Amino acid sequence: MRALVLDESGLGLDERRHEPVVGDLPPGEVLIRPTRMGVCSTDLELCKGYMAYEGVLGHEFVGVVEAVCKDVDKAWVGRRVVGEINCVCGQCDMCKGGLKEHCRDRTVLGIMGRDGCFAERFVLPAVNLHAVPDNVDDDRAVFVEPLAAALQVVRQLTIEGRPYVTVLGDGRLGLLCAQVLSTLNATVRCVGKHEAKLGLCEKWGIKHRLLEDVGLRQDQDIVVDCTGSASGLTTAMAMLRPRGTLVRKTTVAPGQMGEGFDLSPIVINELNVIGSRCGPFAEAVDWLSREAVDVVSLISKRMKLGDGPGVLEQAGKPGVIKVLLQP
Amino acid sequence: MRALVLDESGLGLDERRHEPVVGDLPPGEVLIRPTRMGVCSTDLELCKGYMAYEGVLGHEFVGVVEAVCKDVDKAWVGRRVVGEINCVCGQCDMCKGGLKEHCRDRTVLGIMGRDGCFAERFVLPAVNLHAVPDNVDDDRAVFVEPLAAALQVVRQLTIEGRPYVTVLGDGRLGLLCAQVLSTLNATVRCVGKHEAKLGLCEKWGIKHRLLEDVGLRQDQDIVVDCTGSASGLTTAMAMLRPRGTLVRKTTVAPGQMGEGFDLSPIVINELNVIGSRCGPFAEAVDWLSREAVDVVSLISKRMKLGDGPGVLEQAGKPGVIKVLLQP
Repeated sequence: MRALVLDESGLGLDERRHEPVVGDLPPGEVLIRPTRMGVCSTDLELCKGYMAYEGVLGHEFVGVVEAVCKDVDKAWVGRRVVGEINCVCGQCDMCKGGLKEHCRDRTVLGIMGRDGCFAERFVLPAVNLHAVPDNVDDDRAVFVEPLAAALQVVRQLTIEGRPYVTVLGDGRLGLLCAQVLSTLNATVRCVGKHEAKLGLCEKWGIKHRLLEDVGLRQDQDIVVDCTGSASGLTTAMAMLRPRGTLVRKTTVAPGQMGEGFDLSPIVINELNVIGSRCGPFAEAVDWLSREAVDVVSLISKRMKLGDGPGVLEQAGKPGVIKVLLQP
Repeated sequence: MRALVLDESGLGLDERRHEPVVGDLPPGEVLIRPTRMGVCSTDLELCKGYMAYEGVLGHEFVGVVEAVCKDVDKAWVGRRVVGEINCVCGQCDMCKGGLKEHCRDRTVLGIMGRDGCFAERFVLPAVNLHAVPDNVDDDRAVFVEPLAAALQVVRQLTIEGRPYVTVLGDGRLGLLCAQVLSTLNATVRCVGKHEAKLGLCEKWGIKHRLLEDVGLRQDQDIVVDCTGSASGLTTAMAMLRPRGTLVRKTTVAPGQMGEGFDLSPIVINELNVIGSRCGPFAEAVDWLSREAVDVVSLISKRMKLGDGPGVLEQAGKPGVIKVLLQP
């Protein structure tokens, strides 16, 4: 089958990747044929060496279950699904303590120890699946994973007294976070570098500013770093008031912090930094089903698996928000 | 007068530093003759270029008020005092919001915009002073500032369900934090690099381990980074369980993070990082008065102002805990 594969030599299109065999599905797992896939900043960072991952790339998808291992409910076959990306053991202290996303023995779809979804077929445990309602089409459903990640920010924050919130970054995740946070009792603005992307905030009625026009005045109560770049942390620290909260969504490959990088504002201003990763899929499906968020406007470009590494190149271009892939 | 002064050329002993003049005391301020002074890691970092500070060094002291500005209560004259190091405006949003340590227009004794206490005389606002009870001698009282910083950690944490707490670093601040935290309903250990320093924990009945003997197993609920070194953050992240809390006391001069420095564990493990700086002086005085903490054992060496830059050299040596200065 066709697949986008990352190995020592970089990202390449493998036209003859070994296809998962129905008879050999691991216990509890299912075979999925993806119909839409999304490219994420994490994919770009993996290509730069983040996590030292090798294998099929990709973790955002909507698809159809084609087959299931014999221990899995056959009702899944033929259903349209999205899937959580952390594949967990169910036995460790994290799993038993309700933090299965942090399972100590996990594999992660297209990120750690498990082939991803940028392929004609891939496998995932049935417990990871969420059925997609009929009123959420593929173009929307493929946003469940990043929307869940945006919703996670809300779960980790306490919003009281109408705080000033800056979403830093006008990319894929930033524009989702801005939409989600703007439903709260907070004064939310999105700050980015791209007038065209910020134009979407205008359409949604969300405050927005170009980074170059914003003073770094230590006056924000909360800053969510969705920049996906090493400099985002320094900017966020400069925007936060003392005792403010920095939600960090950005992961970058090691060694990008630069020479004069300075973390002392965290101590001097007694900042609270909260790392934030994967979020609640069921909630994200619900938001899409209620049309509580606009994801279709985020689609910049549609490409095909066969376009190979060019897909990642496109997703990395300044003007581009979301690149969707079809098989 | 004699003073230890940091300028472009480094730290030096100035034998003829201009002495503060009683008649010229700024409104609200008092003249203090320090009787004991303590050397802190921040002093060492300032000498490396942290904060770009120039002036008399030093912010830990106990001393006697020699004179007061005419608008200050004369009852202070002759009293033995310690003093908070942040000199604040009282007018800005931080001061009015109860966060005066974060005053936007502050100066900080021996750290930012105000000559410090490593001198024969120095000045400080009267509102910063705390009288020292007779049962707390000078050797103990000089520890009020660092003890308050240790107590601040407790203020910023929620301790529930007997968490596993590691105090990382067996230096001045680490040994104070270990003592303070061990009074809580938590399993506390101090992890450091120096057998002799950790021996104090043995004496106090506090668990302790050499760093080289400790597995970095992501199993601690809380880690307090008191290492004062750039590598402390990386070690702390490797010790914390997912969703654990890292209290950061360490400030280092910019650019020491090293090439492969990687902050991604904060996001991947959804860590909570809390910056922690100055703490409650009144509480620290009370702890010393109740003899709830052993500070005298921390004194490694007594030196004099006249020993000049050698004082900082001594304080920076591996085996040394606290260096006290006398005029």
